Formats: sequence, structure tokens, C-alpha cells
Amino acid sequence: MTQNPQIKPAPIKHALTTTRAGDFAAWYQEVISAAEMAEESGVRGCMVIRPWGYGIWERIQHLMDARIKAAGVENCYFPLFIPLSYFAKEAEHVDGFAKEMAVVTHHRLIADGKGGLVPDPEAKLEEPLIVRPTSETVIGQAMARWVQSWRDLPLLTNQWANVVRWEMRTRMFLRTSEFLWQEGHTAHADRTDAMAETLRALEMYRSFSEEALAMPVVAGEKPENERFPGAAATYSIEAMMQDGKALQAGTSHYLGTGFAEAAGIHYQNKEGQQALCHTTSWGVSTRLIGGVIMTHGDDDGLRVPPAIAPQQIVILPMLRDTDEYEALLAYCEELRSSLAKQQALGEPIRVLHDKRPGKATQKRWAWVKKGVPLILEIGGRDAASGQVSVVRRDRLWQDNGKVNFSAMSREDFLGRAASEIEDIQRSLHAEATERRDAQIVRGIDTLDGLKAYFSGDEDKAGQKYPGWVEMGWSRPTGAALEAVVEVLKSLKLTIRNTPLGAGKPEGLCPFTGEAAVETIYVARSY
Amino acid sequence: MTQNPQIKPAPIKHALTTTRAGDFAAWYQEVISAAEMAEESGVRGCMVIRPWGYGIWERIQHLMDARIKAAGVENCYFPLFIPLSYFAKEAEHVDGFAKEMAVVTHHRLIADGKGGLVPDPEAKLEEPLIVRPTSETVIGQAMARWVQSWRDLPLLTNQWANVVRWEMRTRMFLRTSEFLWQEGHTAHADRTDAMAETLRALEMYRSFSEEALAMPVVAGEKPENERFPGAAATYSIEAMMQDGKALQAGTSHYLGTGFAEAAGIHYQNKEGQQALCHTTSWGVSTRLIGGVIMTHGDDDGLRVPPAIAPQQIVILPMLRDTDEYEALLAYCEELRSSLAKQQALGEPIRVLHDKRPGKATQKRWAWVKKGVPLILEIGGRDAASGQVSVVRRDRLWQDNGKVNFSAMSREDFLGRAASEIEDIQRSLHAEATERRDAQIVRGIDTLDGLKAYFSGDEDKAGQKYPGWVEMGWSRPTGAALEAVVEVLKSLKLTIRNTPLGAGKPEGLCPFTGEAAVETIYVARSY
Repeated sequence: MTQNPQIKPAPIKHALTTTRAGDFAAWYQEVISAAEMAEESGVRGCMVIRPWGYGIWERIQHLMDARIKAAGVENCYFPLFIPLSYFAKEAEHVDGFAKEMAVVTHHRLIADGKGGLVPDPEAKLEEPLIVRPTSETVIGQAMARWVQSWRDLPLLTNQWANVVRWEMRTRMFLRTSEFLWQEGHTAHADRTDAMAETLRALEMYRSFSEEALAMPVVAGEKPENERFPGAAATYSIEAMMQDGKALQAGTSHYLGTGFAEAAGIHYQNKEGQQALCHTTSWGVSTRLIGGVIMTHGDDDGLRVPPAIAPQQIVILPMLRDTDEYEALLAYCEELRSSLAKQQALGEPIRVLHDKRPGKATQKRWAWVKKGVPLILEIGGRDAASGQVSVVRRDRLWQDNGKVNFSAMSREDFLGRAASEIEDIQRSLHAEATERRDAQIVRGIDTLDGLKAYFSGDEDKAGQKYPGWVEMGWSRPTGAALEAVVEVLKSLKLTIRNTPLGAGKPEGLCPFTGEAAVETIYVARSY
Repeated sequence: MTQNPQIKPAPIKHALTTTRAGDFAAWYQEVISAAEMAEESGVRGCMVIRPWGYGIWERIQHLMDARIKAAGVENCYFPLFIPLSYFAKEAEHVDGFAKEMAVVTHHRLIADGKGGLVPDPEAKLEEPLIVRPTSETVIGQAMARWVQSWRDLPLLTNQWANVVRWEMRTRMFLRTSEFLWQEGHTAHADRTDAMAETLRALEMYRSFSEEALAMPVVAGEKPENERFPGAAATYSIEAMMQDGKALQAGTSHYLGTGFAEAAGIHYQNKEGQQALCHTTSWGVSTRLIGGVIMTHGDDDGLRVPPAIAPQQIVILPMLRDTDEYEALLAYCEELRSSLAKQQALGEPIRVLHDKRPGKATQKRWAWVKKGVPLILEIGGRDAASGQVSVVRRDRLWQDNGKVNFSAMSREDFLGRAASEIEDIQRSLHAEATERRDAQIVRGIDTLDGLKAYFSGDEDKAGQKYPGWVEMGWSRPTGAALEAVVEVLKSLKLTIRNTPLGAGKPEGLCPFTGEAAVETIYVARSY
């Protein structure tokens, strides 16, 4: 059918009121709100994670935990509270974290005589307790008890837990005072083994991000100034958000022997001598959900990669007519049941028959904003004739501004549901990778070039961020590195990481004028 | 084969140094230590949950979460911190909890000038934050935002979280300052619907305890004096430990409209009028693990019911001879792989091939103490002849004091592994039920009778606790109830609950002399 050139296609009416191009930061908040993922709690810096947001976190936990266990790492649980003195043992670590932590000083409340409650002065703790910002210190104490001989190594532990870092400026999922994460902590006989574990965790995060989150990342080593406090080396995965900024989405640290020395993690080696362990730690958090939003979201809300979608298919009965009500619900229920017996991405398909009362179009747009991968709308006539009407969330619109529903027979849909789900997972990854690659620029080898490239205004309506610069540098250390960091800071830039496996670059370092020795990514970041 | 009467069977040499009969409290601690389930953390009142203990908790979470989700309840996550003012809103609730809570008063540390750290006086919080002892108040605030109309009801939420109640005397799993739990919170249009949810959760806990934990429990209503602070009615499941004491293993509360009023949870009903919601809350915690230990443990350590065992079968290769080493490991690995493909109790069999270095007998006893349901020992000759040697943890000993290993062909074992696992689950439940029923006494209908029955010394070596008394009472309230509570307290007794479905008893109430109107259990308790 040829289009009538006289009729101009209607513009698309997107589901959100803000757009990514218009105001990326406001768009991000609107997605979280419109998809009912999380909200402010009324408690400073802490959020309430609502069922759709928490369901995504449960999927992340499920898939990541399987990878952690497959590597022989065992889950444990360590105390929420860490005595102040544990921190004092690790001076370098304290410097990095001491500034902003929640401090418990009392263990009882009493009436203040005015109808209120106050901390009981009689119940002041002898030693304040810190709400864990991370657990190296308290886990180190346990490792010192558990490790005696080389036979006890490697010791591979992990915990899923909440942690608190008092933050002045918070943003949901990306930076909150309380957040949820997993923290792996391991002890090894030597540097070689510990470094292998550090890189194993990094690769686990890289492949998880690409495969489960459909989020392309660069795995590499952070520069010295960005190391975890007390670490000998820190590695990260870095993802590019749709505004071109970088998001550090996971870190893995080789801690050397510093933490082992502070906590006393010794072992008797095969020669019968005492030796210090080499330790590692690695973690990802609810921040990943922020990365998913800013990687896959569009102007209609979230798009959830099927692998981490709490529901992959939602079936919406169009309950218009009371006559056909029972038959329609029975048809939808049978469809749900048939789909739930199928597998996609190696697991049973997660499908919801949403028969709550309410207008079908309202329900449709609620699910569009939540980003469920496939939406089925079934009317009475569909049920009678064995049809379904389906739309892929990643291909929501026709060119003419209409929602891109396709009609097909029930059998056709049952035959292709799993492959559609798997194709959506692939497509989201391909789309994000293509966009990321298009926003990495190479060939800038002077400071002036860097300044010119990043001179565009930030956060201005319609202004696209310029993405990342891939460049060589001479890997300066100490004061020379500090000078580089200051220059970059004045441009609101940071070095993200040195990608693993990148070859030695040509040319000179734009910061020092010396020969470049390795590749780095420079970018604005969250 | 007839036994030679001249040869006296060797006494059984149990794996633990303490026995249940000798010192039940010390035995409990030894099981936890010997099974490597948990240990003191060095942080007051907080424990470290080690992999075997945490693995049991993960199994409990997995099975309970499926039941919670099947009931239409959605998981969320709410803040760890609760502003002090939230507690002040619920006066009755505060009275119950205000006494012992962890209070955060500062958000920063600074150097004290003497090489140490102190809370920064400049960073004192305007309003102290309480580490949640339970989340009714903060979840109530969210419900007030989420509930607008009758269409939003029922609102069914749950969270898996850590909570803190400052405890003076702690005991691992049973009473710790920090513990892990799930807390369900629901809002309903009326009392009928809220009470139905309260009882649904109670029945979920009852069936879970019986089926997953193999732990018989009595589900019933707590007396007025044992209600959750602010609740209109509190229900519990009560389990009997091997020392005859009761353990409250889970609670479900009908909260009436009190919490809804404090938090402002209103809705517009079908008639267009504003009405208050009726709310419920219900929870189980890591305390369940203490119940499992004291229900199923024996003088050789823990016995884990297969449904919650992190591993159901452990295969131990007897690595004596280097010649047969490779063939033996290959045989064991094939066995593991074949077992892992089978199902027992509706899930794939969890089987570990423990090929760590170490003496086979040491490894066997470590697994006996951990309570893995089935242990296989495989020697080189077994591998060569296609045999296995297997022992059930719940039938560990022969009468002659030898470990009860059976030899059978590999095929025989593969054919019966699943049914053995299921039989162990059933047997543990039957054994615990029989013991519990034998320790419930009836027919005591005077206070003197009660005193006489419980007059035996407690905690004395060799002294068995007398279990529970099932009796009628007149259900006094107010001051009359307080008098009963005091009398019972002097006997170190409490009323556990009024079992659901018990008929109206005959006779008089031993406390008030009035006609008995309902049945109660009276017992010593944890």
C-alpha cells in the first residue's frame, strides 16, 4: 500500500513528558517515577525500591549469584556494625572512607519529658559503631581466624548486603546513602593467585554486563588516583550512558598485603613458614539499575533487557464487553500457561496475565513505561478467532506515529515468543554498542585538542555530550599525575580506565609530552 | 548372623564432646561451632554466619520467597534508618520497642589529634536516626502515598532485610542484636480481609515449618500480654525443642487501624468516602535456624532436613592410592553428574563431590557434624567394581557402635537416591512430631498441679525438661491476666498460644476458678 503524500504522518506522542534530548537528568528521574521503580523515602538520602525496581534487582542477584557460586565463592553474612577501632587499624583505608559514615553512639531511647524521645545518655556506647560502608575490615578479622595453613587457601567469600556512605548529593540508584550490593572478599597465598582472582571477578562483571544487562562496558585498570583506599590496583567496568557520560558500573581490587597485615591474615606455607595473605575485594550494586535505565531507556520510559525483566511478556485482556468476559479471560489464561512452559534465554519465560480492573490503554502505557519486552493485547474477537496482537517494546512505533502492534495467530506467536525475547536481548545490546562506539573519538593527542573537544556546554537543552576520548598517555605517577588530574578536573573530566588488552599507543602524551605508553579513556562521568 | 553374647557391643563414640542430655545449652553452641554454621564476630551481639549456616538460610529464603510470591505479595526494599519522629507517632509501638535500639547521631568521623577517630561534633544529625528494629512505621509512610482508592487494595508487600534490636544477652541464631528476616506488610479495606491475610501468613509459616523444616509447630493466637506492641491480635507458630522448651518460630499480626491512623493510610471506598485501612505484618527470621538445630540435632552434630540442606549428598573419594587416583575421581565425578540430573522434593538433587585434600575419615566426620543427609564414601575398589558405600545421617549408627554404611551397586544407589532423600525428610518430621506429642501433657487443671509438674530443676545435668502443658483457661484480660502472668513468671513459665481449631475445653480455669473457655499451651521457652 502506498502512502498518500498529502497526509503527513502524525508526530509520535511519547509516554513521558521530558525527553532525553531535552533534559537528560529530569528524564532519568521521570523514568524511575513513571516505571514505579523507586521513590524518595522521606529518610535523607535513602530510597524506597518499589516492586518493579526490586524485581530487576532480584533478577540481577539471581544471575550474578549463580556466576559467583560457579567460581567456587561461598556466601556468608558479616555484621552491619564495625567498631571504630577496626577502621583505625587501616590508616590508608580510613582516609578514603572516614569522612562520611553513619555513626551509632547510643543503644537506647528514653522519654524527654516533653512527649518525645531522645537518646538515653546512660546508654552511650563505650566505643562508637560504624554502619559498614564496605566490609574489608570486619571480614579481615574473620579471615584471620579462618586461615591457618596453605590448605585453607584460597578463601573465597561473598556477601549480599546493605551498606551506608553518607552522601550530600544523592540521585536514585546512582548515589544513595544506603545501597544494596554484593561484596566479594578473597584471600590467597601469593600475588599471582590474588591477581588472577581480581581479574576473574572483573571478567565476570564484564560478561554479566554485556550478557545479562545488554550493557556494553570497557574493562580496565583505574589510574592510581582513582584506586580504592588502600588497594594496590583497582579495576573497573565502565559503561557509556546515552548522554555520553561514563558510569563506573563495578570494581575489582587487588589489595596486596596491606589489609592482611592490618587484620593479621597469616598462613603457614608448604615450607612451614608464616606468610601474609594477598587479598582482593570486588563489588557491584543497585547502581547497575541506574546504568540499565540510562543505557536502554527511551522517551517512552524504561526498556528492560529480557534477561533481567521481572516479567518478559504481559498479557492484557481488553475487558470491554461483559458477554465475552469469561471466554476472554480463559483464552488469556491458557496463553499465559502455554508461554510459561516455554524457555527463553535458558530459563522459563516469565509471563504475567494482568487482569486487574482498569482501562486497557492505561494499563498498556503503564507497561510501556515499565519497559516490559513484549506486550500482548487480546480482545474478545481475538479470543474468538485464535488471534493475538503483540508489540515489541524496543520497536514501539510505526513511522506514521501509531503503536506498532502486529496481529498474528496464537500458534504463530507461541512458535516465535522465545526467539523474539532472545532477539530483543540481542538488539538492545547491539543498539547500545553501536551508540557507544559512535561516541568514542580517537586521534586527539594534545591538551588543546582535548579542551576544544569538550568545550560544549553541559546540561544545556538539546546539547549532546561528546562521549569519550580514547588516547595515549605516559602513565605519570605522584605529583605529575596530580597535575594531570587537576587539569582534567578543570574540564570536568576524569580518566576512566586503561582498557585491558589495548596495544601500546603511538605518539606523545598530551599531558607530559613524553612517549605514550598506554591507552586511556577520558570522559565526563557520574 | 547371630551375635556372640560374650562380646559386648562397643559404646558409640559420638562426634561431639557435649551431649543433649548432659548440657543442652552447651551442646547447642557446640553444634553451631562444629558444623561451622556461625561464630561470634567480635562485634557485640552480632554473629558471622558462615557458608553452611548461610547456605541453610538461602534455602529457607528460596522456599519461603516462592510461597510469599505465590500469595501475590511483592518484594520491595525500605530504608535501614527510621527518623526518631516516626516512632513518636505510634505511642504504643514505641513503648514496646523504644528501650533498646541502635541510634545513629553523627554522619562523620574526624581525627581526635591522638591518632584515633571520633564522631565529628560538627556532623551531629538534627534528628537522630534509628536502625530499624522492624519497619511498620517507615512502610506505613509509603503505604499512605501508594493507597488512594479501594482499587489499590489489598496492598501486599514484603522485604528481606537485616534488623537490629539491642540485646543484652545474646545466643546465636536465637537472639542476636542484628538478625536477618523477612517482614510482610499489607493494607486492606476492612477487618475481614486483613484478618484473612493475617491467618494466611500464619498458615504459610505453619506449612513451611512442617514441610520444609520438618519441624512440627502449633499455630495459634498469643495471649493479650504477648501481643506485638500496637497490634490488635498476634498469632504465632510454636515449636518444641528437644529440651521441652517452646520456641516462637514466626509471628503474624493483625494491626487493626492503629498503624494506619498514625501513618495516615486512608482510601476512598466504593461509596466515595474516606476510610482507614486495616493493616497486618508478619515475619520469620534466622531464628528458624536455631529451631532446626534444636529440633533435629543429635549428639553427632546437626541433621539438616534435605529440603533446606545446601547439599543433600556429599561424595567423598578415599584418596589412598595414587595409582587409582584419576579413575576414582572420574568415577565420583560421573556419579555426581548423574545424581545432579535427578530430582528430589521437586528440585534437582544438590550433590557435592568433595575432592579437597585431607584424610577421608576427617572429612566424613566434618560432614556428619554439618548434618548432610547422605554421605557416600568411594574407594578405589568401589570405583573398579561399580559400587558405592553410603550412610544416612539420620541412621548413623549400628547397634554395635559402628557407622552404618551400606554397600550397594552404583545402579542401585542411583535408583533410590531421590526416595532416600525424601524419606529422610519424612523421617525427621515424624521423629520430631512423635517426640513433641509425647512431651505434651494434658489433664492438669489446678495451679498446684502445674507447680508440681514444673517443679523439677532446670538446666541440671541429666534433668529432662517436662515439655508443655495443654490446659483450659478462662481467658482473663487486664489486671486479671497480669496476675496470671505473674504467677506463671514465678514458675519461669509463659502462655505460648491458643491453638487454632481447638475445641472448647471442659472444666475450670486453674488461675481464676471460672469456666474454661479456650485451650492454651503453657511452657518454658526461649
